[in-house]
Amino acid sequence: MKVSELLGERYKDRTSEIESQNLMTRGGYIKQVGNGIYSLLPPAKRIENKIEAILRQEMDRIGGQEVLFPVAMPAALWQSSGRWESVGKELLRFKDRSGADMLLGMTHEEAAVHMAMNIAGTYQKYPFMIYQIQTKFRDEPRARGGLIRVREFTMKDAYSFHTSQKDLERYYKRCYRAYERIYARVGIPEVVAVASDSGMMGGKVSHEFMLLTDIGEDTIVLCPECGYRANMEAADCIVHNDNGEEAAPLEKVATYDNKTIEDVCKFLQSSEKKSCKAVVYQRNEDDSYVLVFVRGDLEVNETKLRNHIKAEVHPAVEIDHVGLVAGAIGPVGLHKGITVVYDRSLEGTRNLVCGANEEGYHYTGLNMDRDVPDAEYADVAKATVGGVCPKCGKHSLIVKNGIEVGNIFQLGRRYTEAMGMTYDDEKGNRVNPIMGCYGIGVGRLIASVCEERHDQYGPIWPITIAPWQIEICALRAEQAHVREAAESLYAALAEQGYEVLYDDRAVSAGFMFSDADLLGSPVRVIISPKTLDRGVIEIATRDKSIKEDVAVENAQQRIKEIVAALYAAINDKVPESL
Amino acid sequence: MKVSELLGERYKDRTSEIESQNLMTRGGYIKQVGNGIYSLLPPAKRIENKIEAILRQEMDRIGGQEVLFPVAMPAALWQSSGRWESVGKELLRFKDRSGADMLLGMTHEEAAVHMAMNIAGTYQKYPFMIYQIQTKFRDEPRARGGLIRVREFTMKDAYSFHTSQKDLERYYKRCYRAYERIYARVGIPEVVAVASDSGMMGGKVSHEFMLLTDIGEDTIVLCPECGYRANMEAADCIVHNDNGEEAAPLEKVATYDNKTIEDVCKFLQSSEKKSCKAVVYQRNEDDSYVLVFVRGDLEVNETKLRNHIKAEVHPAVEIDHVGLVAGAIGPVGLHKGITVVYDRSLEGTRNLVCGANEEGYHYTGLNMDRDVPDAEYADVAKATVGGVCPKCGKHSLIVKNGIEVGNIFQLGRRYTEAMGMTYDDEKGNRVNPIMGCYGIGVGRLIASVCEERHDQYGPIWPITIAPWQIEICALRAEQAHVREAAESLYAALAEQGYEVLYDDRAVSAGFMFSDADLLGSPVRVIISPKTLDRGVIEIATRDKSIKEDVAVENAQQRIKEIVAALYAAINDKVPESL
Repeated sequence: MKVSELLGERYKDRTSEIESQNLMTRGGYIKQVGNGIYSLLPPAKRIENKIEAILRQEMDRIGGQEVLFPVAMPAALWQSSGRWESVGKELLRFKDRSGADMLLGMTHEEAAVHMAMNIAGTYQKYPFMIYQIQTKFRDEPRARGGLIRVREFTMKDAYSFHTSQKDLERYYKRCYRAYERIYARVGIPEVVAVASDSGMMGGKVSHEFMLLTDIGEDTIVLCPECGYRANMEAADCIVHNDNGEEAAPLEKVATYDNKTIEDVCKFLQSSEKKSCKAVVYQRNEDDSYVLVFVRGDLEVNETKLRNHIKAEVHPAVEIDHVGLVAGAIGPVGLHKGITVVYDRSLEGTRNLVCGANEEGYHYTGLNMDRDVPDAEYADVAKATVGGVCPKCGKHSLIVKNGIEVGNIFQLGRRYTEAMGMTYDDEKGNRVNPIMGCYGIGVGRLIASVCEERHDQYGPIWPITIAPWQIEICALRAEQAHVREAAESLYAALAEQGYEVLYDDRAVSAGFMFSDADLLGSPVRVIISPKTLDRGVIEIATRDKSIKEDVAVENAQQRIKEIVAALYAAINDKVPESL
Repeated sequence: MKVSELLGERYKDRTSEIESQNLMTRGGYIKQVGNGIYSLLPPAKRIENKIEAILRQEMDRIGGQEVLFPVAMPAALWQSSGRWESVGKELLRFKDRSGADMLLGMTHEEAAVHMAMNIAGTYQKYPFMIYQIQTKFRDEPRARGGLIRVREFTMKDAYSFHTSQKDLERYYKRCYRAYERIYARVGIPEVVAVASDSGMMGGKVSHEFMLLTDIGEDTIVLCPECGYRANMEAADCIVHNDNGEEAAPLEKVATYDNKTIEDVCKFLQSSEKKSCKAVVYQRNEDDSYVLVFVRGDLEVNETKLRNHIKAEVHPAVEIDHVGLVAGAIGPVGLHKGITVVYDRSLEGTRNLVCGANEEGYHYTGLNMDRDVPDAEYADVAKATVGGVCPKCGKHSLIVKNGIEVGNIFQLGRRYTEAMGMTYDDEKGNRVNPIMGCYGIGVGRLIASVCEERHDQYGPIWPITIAPWQIEICALRAEQAHVREAAESLYAALAEQGYEVLYDDRAVSAGFMFSDADLLGSPVRVIISPKTLDRGVIEIATRDKSIKEDVAVENAQQRIKEIVAALYAAINDKVPESL
């Protein structure tokens, strides 16, 4: 392809703080059509096609069968699983011309079960996996970052069906490995799997694949000692309280206008760690109250709270009318009738400060076992930097940001039970199959590669997904010998199946190179009167690891060697499949 | 792929009168999810992928650049072209979580202009063509026939931009040829292009590509003498009236209860051809009346009428209150104030029967030039079998049904003007580019190939798009020598890149063959104890043109020859590209 014919212009002006958005906008890859909705221009579509090919190969390798589910689905399908009612506004619901309720698919468990349910009626048909690459729509309230968080996106989603949990686990491992291969093949082997919360998907075991980067919206808890990794949403919070202290008496003290736990502790010259903090939520469904007590130096993890009480919640708006005294809520002498959750950071604690449920007063000397003997504890606190690793037990946790570039779930029988999908097992009993599901968003993956592989001038596309492998820059192509050299090399490489971009424009070297930087081809060939006079042409890699002059007659061979080496460098990091 | 692992079951029971729907449902290709909404099972998805690859190759060959537009678009985009308001309920409109108006794309002219409008500002950038393969949604009131007429479908749509009508026409021809190549490559070179009505797309010249078949919903007018072809919606109706007759006087006659033109003519012993028939419509926008007069033996072509009066219409519901006398409407003595359209079949006619605008009375001796001297004539009648060909002038027209499998439009400046897309021409003037657009629905194309290429037992897929090129049927694979022969052939062919389906199931030959018929692989290899005893295996083609026993040691070679011959037979019919 000639750059002069490529649809798209490249810009100098910075467009976003997020580098992938900035470079892909300036480089003519994406154009925003609406809030969280983008068109892909030719370079981005070429990347997408290459990633899709890799996804297909890896899904086929683990026995996947490609199918296609609808984007627009009748409500009845999601009613059969209960998600029509349970999923929030991110599920886009609408009515068709006949007034029938419909939705735009944001995931396809129901469609997968619908497809499989009458054609996998005996155990011999199992296991099997079906996958699709299709447009999804998720009505995100906060789209951001170009392709990082959008509303409409292309996704590879896969669904496996099994006759036993053991078989699911075996397949789950194969898919986990396939995902590692995919990230390595697209050039970001740095992606790590973390334990995650299953959220609206149901099921118990799940993992997210994370690219650790400062611009990521997810918070990841890691242990450098033992390799433990979890999404903050799912990370256990383990607290070792020193319970050897002598129990002091519970005493009410005046704390005047001090209301936040910080102010109260400062006023009483106590540490926040030695306090019991109250946080009030309301259930989304009926606005009823949920009161959480947590050790004063910790924060509530709302995802774990939601999972514990099995309800969506939001921070309470107004609390006075239910008998809670803002700024002085404590576990002793509470009004009844409100759900109370005690975080396990409070278990067995002694001599804490807490609210006295009376305006201007707190208690000192709260001893949980003595003063709140009926408390039941649950883990609803956020893990902290320097906290205890749930795996190795050291005070080693660190926290990083990450972009989620894929997820895998062990769904169990959540959907097959709800939708009544069964098969005859070996004994002739009708039972529900067990499912797993496995997703990768293509657009976000492109943006993530760009985040991880760029310099200030543009993306440095891995050769496996680069829009073009090679760019030939012909400087002063109006001179016949330059044009001839460039065009014969272009034709020869294209003939041999290489993907070559050829810049034949009458523009300055600086202009041409800055465009080439934005287009990010891994190998750049520069042909100019100056080099040709010396009988050479310049060959360089976009990552700056190679820059050399090569005799014209050897150029083709050398380019092919470099391309091969770039592929080999990526393939070396791809783990064996399972 | 082993048939035992292929997701899908095949059925004997007929599911539809439409053969492609019947066979593709019974064969495990498609499953209905909702009204006009289908999932594609693995065999159909494999066909779709192959067709998409052909579409990409042919679009790339004529300089197309692949892009991706959104499925869900903000209303603002379609408001900028005026189509948010003008398109009917087939455009699915909805609101997102923030209450913003949105739509599901049924075509992407606006998105194409939006993408190109700021990056093609000078004449040097032209011409260019962008295309996508993407899901579309069209809220059809009458979905039918499996993939023939659905609401959600995968479509290849392309948009070209030009600086002159001449350049558009040159490119239009290239694209027309590319379409002929596509239909030939997918195995239905029978597809013909017909002149069509541009409908909601705007523009003047357009063609539809039609597969002529009895189940088609479109009506095509053809001239076997000269090759003229047009959609009935767009076909000229040419009438030669013998005007040599002596003019009789206009006389009112009692016709009593005879109201239809058929009854009146019978009562008066006149031929329908010698009558003037009235047909009453109302405009959709305001229910105002449009009265059409047409020669009694012809029918009104509502598409041509709509184009002539530039308004959507529907047959009138009630007419008495506007002074029209049902069953006796005629052009003489009409009330004023109603739009009247005279079809050109009436031009210069003499001595016709027509309504007298009085209950129970008609006129004889209507002479249009004398009695309705101010009439202006337009072509709003349907062409007829045996009618005059607009191209060669012979009374040669025939009418057939067809499925529209593609369309191409010369759009002109309809969208670029409305949306304000401009470029600087050579003189520095800012002008609107001229567009063309080009669509092919992938699912309908699959169904159309199935309609054209099947027998009573199943589809006969052309090898270029068959889910698998070869099926190996191993009869009695429980016998080691059968299994070994089958598996070594399967492995060898797969190793060489052939797509092979291998039926290793312990089922009867009849059961296996009827499944193989439904899966429609072009080449079938049968390995059984009986043939192996003779040292041969059977090789047959699905189209029954070949059935032969081949020595085991020659089988691989012979299979490859047959596959190559099947490809060659298709490629022989592919015209050169322009």
